[in-house]
Amino acid sequence: MSIRSVIKVLSFLLLVTAGCLLLPAGVSALYRESDWLYFLAAAGLGVLIGGVSLLFLRDAPDLKVREGFAVVAFGWLVVGLLGAVPYWLSGQIPSFTDAAFESISGFTTTGASILDDIEGRSHGALFWRALTHWLGGMGIVLLALAILPLLGVGGMQLYRAEVPGPVAERLTPRIRETAKLLWGVYVLLTGLEVLALVVAGMGFFDAVCHSFATMATGGFSNHNASVGGYASPAIEWIIILFMFLAGTNFTLHFLALTGRWWIYWRDEEFKFYGTIIICSTLLIAGSLFWIQFYTGIGDTLRQTLFQVVSITTTTGFGTADYLQWPPVSHAVLLILMAVGGCAGSTGGGIKVMRVLILLKHAKLELKKMLHPRGIFTVWFNNRALTPGLQTNVLGFFLLFMMVYVAGVLILTLGGRDLVTSIGATAATLGNIGPGLGLVGPTSNYAVLLDWEKWLLVLFMLIGRLELFTVLVLFLPGAWRRS
Amino acid sequence: MSIRSVIKVLSFLLLVTAGCLLLPAGVSALYRESDWLYFLAAAGLGVLIGGVSLLFLRDAPDLKVREGFAVVAFGWLVVGLLGAVPYWLSGQIPSFTDAAFESISGFTTTGASILDDIEGRSHGALFWRALTHWLGGMGIVLLALAILPLLGVGGMQLYRAEVPGPVAERLTPRIRETAKLLWGVYVLLTGLEVLALVVAGMGFFDAVCHSFATMATGGFSNHNASVGGYASPAIEWIIILFMFLAGTNFTLHFLALTGRWWIYWRDEEFKFYGTIIICSTLLIAGSLFWIQFYTGIGDTLRQTLFQVVSITTTTGFGTADYLQWPPVSHAVLLILMAVGGCAGSTGGGIKVMRVLILLKHAKLELKKMLHPRGIFTVWFNNRALTPGLQTNVLGFFLLFMMVYVAGVLILTLGGRDLVTSIGATAATLGNIGPGLGLVGPTSNYAVLLDWEKWLLVLFMLIGRLELFTVLVLFLPGAWRRS
Repeated sequence: MSIRSVIKVLSFLLLVTAGCLLLPAGVSALYRESDWLYFLAAAGLGVLIGGVSLLFLRDAPDLKVREGFAVVAFGWLVVGLLGAVPYWLSGQIPSFTDAAFESISGFTTTGASILDDIEGRSHGALFWRALTHWLGGMGIVLLALAILPLLGVGGMQLYRAEVPGPVAERLTPRIRETAKLLWGVYVLLTGLEVLALVVAGMGFFDAVCHSFATMATGGFSNHNASVGGYASPAIEWIIILFMFLAGTNFTLHFLALTGRWWIYWRDEEFKFYGTIIICSTLLIAGSLFWIQFYTGIGDTLRQTLFQVVSITTTTGFGTADYLQWPPVSHAVLLILMAVGGCAGSTGGGIKVMRVLILLKHAKLELKKMLHPRGIFTVWFNNRALTPGLQTNVLGFFLLFMMVYVAGVLILTLGGRDLVTSIGATAATLGNIGPGLGLVGPTSNYAVLLDWEKWLLVLFMLIGRLELFTVLVLFLPGAWRRS
Repeated sequence: MSIRSVIKVLSFLLLVTAGCLLLPAGVSALYRESDWLYFLAAAGLGVLIGGVSLLFLRDAPDLKVREGFAVVAFGWLVVGLLGAVPYWLSGQIPSFTDAAFESISGFTTTGASILDDIEGRSHGALFWRALTHWLGGMGIVLLALAILPLLGVGGMQLYRAEVPGPVAERLTPRIRETAKLLWGVYVLLTGLEVLALVVAGMGFFDAVCHSFATMATGGFSNHNASVGGYASPAIEWIIILFMFLAGTNFTLHFLALTGRWWIYWRDEEFKFYGTIIICSTLLIAGSLFWIQFYTGIGDTLRQTLFQVVSITTTTGFGTADYLQWPPVSHAVLLILMAVGGCAGSTGGGIKVMRVLILLKHAKLELKKMLHPRGIFTVWFNNRALTPGLQTNVLGFFLLFMMVYVAGVLILTLGGRDLVTSIGATAATLGNIGPGLGLVGPTSNYAVLLDWEKWLLVLFMLIGRLELFTVLVLFLPGAWRRS
């Protein structure tokens, strides 16, 4: 591996992040708060480190596939650490561990927070939290649709973005073209949500922050009671709709915007995603209605749909404390946490596409029992999956389960109770945010110990970057000089 | 499928079971208890049904692979239902649902009990409970090593019993030969355990019953406090040893007995099985020692090892209430519940061999990321696994997870709490016995509702018969006339 090439790209990312830090500095100045200085200082630090190393590494060779893994994994880490600096410098988050947790939780669009009192934070800090989500979400869409397919990660090859663009042998123009188109969609949808939320009565600042958090399926809110704090059904419906859109493959949105609006009904993953949400909602709403948990059908449906969509898309916004709901809702929500959003969306988790392929595979193996000599193929969106692609997806699932199990083991070994350990691992590995037990929807991650927070940071990165990208760096072979 | 052929074999199984029912009748008469009559009545019922249908089906065609699935799945069910009759007739277990639960839990070597007061049962009933285990265990060893490989179930093809025998095209002589040899080992080990337990001070009747339950990795004890009731370290060490042997592939025991004693150290699955037990014990014992849960190292190690081996081998005997142990032990035991014993043993669960193959597969997929054009092979016991065998094992794991998830969903939908639902599903699907929550090690299954008990009976059968065998019958294609 050429470490010089990796550092060169990381330095470039630091410069971009430094540029982005000027935005919260501006917001802070606008609201006449004192912490604009710290955002500027952090930006300066980014320029200094990034600029100096770029000077020394101008002649580093171009990236190859192997370096791609390191760039993706360390990129999110480095950017996240720089993003923690203003929280820490300004004293908005006094502990650096906490600041790094909040920042990386933002960039990985997890939305797990260590803040006890969110409403007491400065506008600059709140805006930066939301912006880390939005930038991270942008990055993920690009990563999933343009970079991961080239790295051959767990079935993402199925999603080589099908947007028009120059068909070229070289990587960069293709990625750049894809990026432009998909980010256009992303910006458009964010703008529409801001507009809708303002019309529904939310203040402009809150509308921007919540739209950033929604489109990135992040989940940071400006209120201690999350979206429930507005007590407005209209706002909840709007956020349900945009969370649903953010959990959908962005290629579909692009194609729909160019006139092919029927494309959604042609996509197997989207249909399955819709089915999962409808069935889960009916199951939970039925059980809530049975015990008359809420007063009317309307309230029951909205509360259920909000929580189901929030968890499935791995956003993590809350309007209700689902830990008070009957047991079947816990089981359903735990499953949805693992499933996650669609591939090529900003959602985390295993991804709907992979779950669908796994289900098809299991059914096929059962059929093989009856016809041992038969030839069976798994079809996805009218394409036959190669055996290599199939075992790739299965490998992804196995690794996901292994990291999950390892996480629960390490946390319980440290003395944390089983339910909290399961909840915290699921919520960070799936990039959801709120978990179960001590880190449930009405609580936060402040109570955990420092080493637990860093472990969860690692899970956020592993989960966000589709496991392989990070785990492959633990193989000794990854570091051999090419 | 030729239903006549299936019924013919099932009738034969009923006759064999009827014969076995004479044993508890004898025990009952020996202890001058009144319920010998009910065992005889049940035997008579078996002879009547089995005999009459055999008369009508003498000319039914021979079995083919497709019928094999139905015979295996319905065989355990039919035998289990006949085995419930004496419990019910004698009033030892007044509800037929409970009687069927206890009987099928016995034949599937699960060891989950609905009995509140075990010590108040008659000797006949206690002996029959133990005997159902022992017969079920015998059946499982034969099934795993001789029949399932032919049906092509989830990797069991790796275990076409490697014992000498006539190499013939026709099925029966081969199965009969394998059966004789393996049952010889089974009887020998059972005899040795009875002897050891008697020497250690256990009464003869209890020694026989506990040896039956140990060698079958069943877990029914004659005491409310299970093996802990004897408060004898010597008895506990003996049972630890024989549980460990029962969880090992019986082919290895056979080969070792014929002089090749080094065969254990050549078998990858056995080595991994040993490693899992040692690591789990050290992890849990360390955490118990840390908080000084027991007074000495000796006690800590014995209690931990007993529970670890009991759960890994899916026996389910208890000497301690592990729910009182620190959280890491819960996490470890939950994982061990899923892993289970070795293939070709009487243990349940996913099986060590499959877990090992899954781990190797995951590692390989990670390596493939670095060398996209490389050719990789999964090796097991110095044999290269075919891709078909690999996806077969993966399919098994997926189906296991799916049934698990479905079980938790159905139980919680009925209003049962999440921890009990998870524990009950894991404990029955893995054929372990004690679970978590309401059905934990110091409790039993009597509190559950009737429909829940029948659902768990289904899970015992699905788990015991390696999933595919039962699930394949839900495919419409299985019932087509051949």
